[in-house]
Amino acid sequence: MVGEPTVGDVFGEMIRDAYAVATGIGPRPLVGGRLPRPVIEIIERDDGLVNGAPTEHYLAGPADWQPYDHRAVDRVRGRTLDVGVGAGRIALHLQERGVPVVGLDTSLGALRVCRHRGLRDVVHGTVDQHVADGHRYDTFLLLGNNLGLIEGRERAPAFLAALAALARPGAQVVAHGTDPYGTTDPVHTGYHERNRRRGRLGGQLRLRLRYRQLGTEWFDYLVCSVEELAELVHGTPWRLTDVDTADAPYYLATLTLAR
Amino acid sequence: MVGEPTVGDVFGEMIRDAYAVATGIGPRPLVGGRLPRPVIEIIERDDGLVNGAPTEHYLAGPADWQPYDHRAVDRVRGRTLDVGVGAGRIALHLQERGVPVVGLDTSLGALRVCRHRGLRDVVHGTVDQHVADGHRYDTFLLLGNNLGLIEGRERAPAFLAALAALARPGAQVVAHGTDPYGTTDPVHTGYHERNRRRGRLGGQLRLRLRYRQLGTEWFDYLVCSVEELAELVHGTPWRLTDVDTADAPYYLATLTLAR
Repeated sequence: MVGEPTVGDVFGEMIRDAYAVATGIGPRPLVGGRLPRPVIEIIERDDGLVNGAPTEHYLAGPADWQPYDHRAVDRVRGRTLDVGVGAGRIALHLQERGVPVVGLDTSLGALRVCRHRGLRDVVHGTVDQHVADGHRYDTFLLLGNNLGLIEGRERAPAFLAALAALARPGAQVVAHGTDPYGTTDPVHTGYHERNRRRGRLGGQLRLRLRYRQLGTEWFDYLVCSVEELAELVHGTPWRLTDVDTADAPYYLATLTLAR
Repeated sequence: MVGEPTVGDVFGEMIRDAYAVATGIGPRPLVGGRLPRPVIEIIERDDGLVNGAPTEHYLAGPADWQPYDHRAVDRVRGRTLDVGVGAGRIALHLQERGVPVVGLDTSLGALRVCRHRGLRDVVHGTVDQHVADGHRYDTFLLLGNNLGLIEGRERAPAFLAALAALARPGAQVVAHGTDPYGTTDPVHTGYHERNRRRGRLGGQLRLRLRYRQLGTEWFDYLVCSVEELAELVHGTPWRLTDVDTADAPYYLATLTLAR
């Protein structure tokens, strides 16, 4: 198939290059072998939509964070697992403040950058895989829109069960989500409709990331309303105990272990 | 095919949105219906390589141009055809300076933006199609890397013949190219090798542009050395009379009508 990417560690390669641009450490992509090229994340959706996004935010320090990131960090207490730690911007900040924090990611390249930046505890894998490692936590962070990792109705129970298996009594999840339904853009409203007709949640995105010659497999990533989240949490070991909508359409959802 | 774009005026939609961002005129793409999204050009190559590039440069004023753009404009004389006029940055500047200039583009959306910005003479189509319109020119501009429009060995003679058919006696072409062979990146050197094995020029890129849900058909776009350009020009009505390599790997090639 012409133009198809090779499956690989898209996120890791991208973060490595973004880190090279930000710090001068390691080679960075060039135009014509000489001129710097910006590092852009490319996100394809299964309806043919493609978006490019600059990657500087993955390495941003607290001064450049969004307000909800600060409010999420203020909620942290106890041993903390940063789920989808990325380049480590949140975990490094917590570590500096003396919080015992572990960074979890499925991208080896991203974890390599975390280590290089000084993050001491990193784990490669999914939340499910991490259960066997024996670590237990008081706080789970799903920032950078990583509430999306609950994927949809099929995956959410198992994902939340894995977090519960990793949880100490009284543990909390602090998750950053986005309500996708404020748009009137037919590209998006049509996509939401199509999803619902197929029995999926409206904002259950089917995506693939690309960077240079690499692509991920297609995966589900959920963008949902607070009401949809409440339904997904219902019947799991978690209760939705707080929703902060001060930066709508973004929100911070706090789940608390029910038992 | 999952994730495939719809064929359409990719460049026009992208330039319209970039113009909306730069000026506040017209709706612009949003995240979650509220937050501005940067306008990124996405370029796929037939080996699966994909790059994203910010689009501000299409609307840049002379203060933000590259040095070779200024030197190209200094070479302009007489009636001028800006081939692949884009958002009109060069043509508008020439028009302000009193140069009789026509902007040619295959993108209706781009020409709409040019008109909105005040460019008086725009023509929709290719150089071949424009021959029948009866206009004749002293200078042809192929800026923004648009030397690439000569595509390769097959297309170059017809493209240069069309320019000759549009030319007044003594006419010139001022073309911006990039020497692609300075890189040691195996992603690129391997691509060049594969091209050569297939009888193509090393930097004869097979590309498609994408923006949101739209994609172009796959097309050839040539990035070549000055030596390769000299070969392509040989035997056509044009002579390669000057090469300005002050900003290598970029160069400005001037062709002069031989008769």
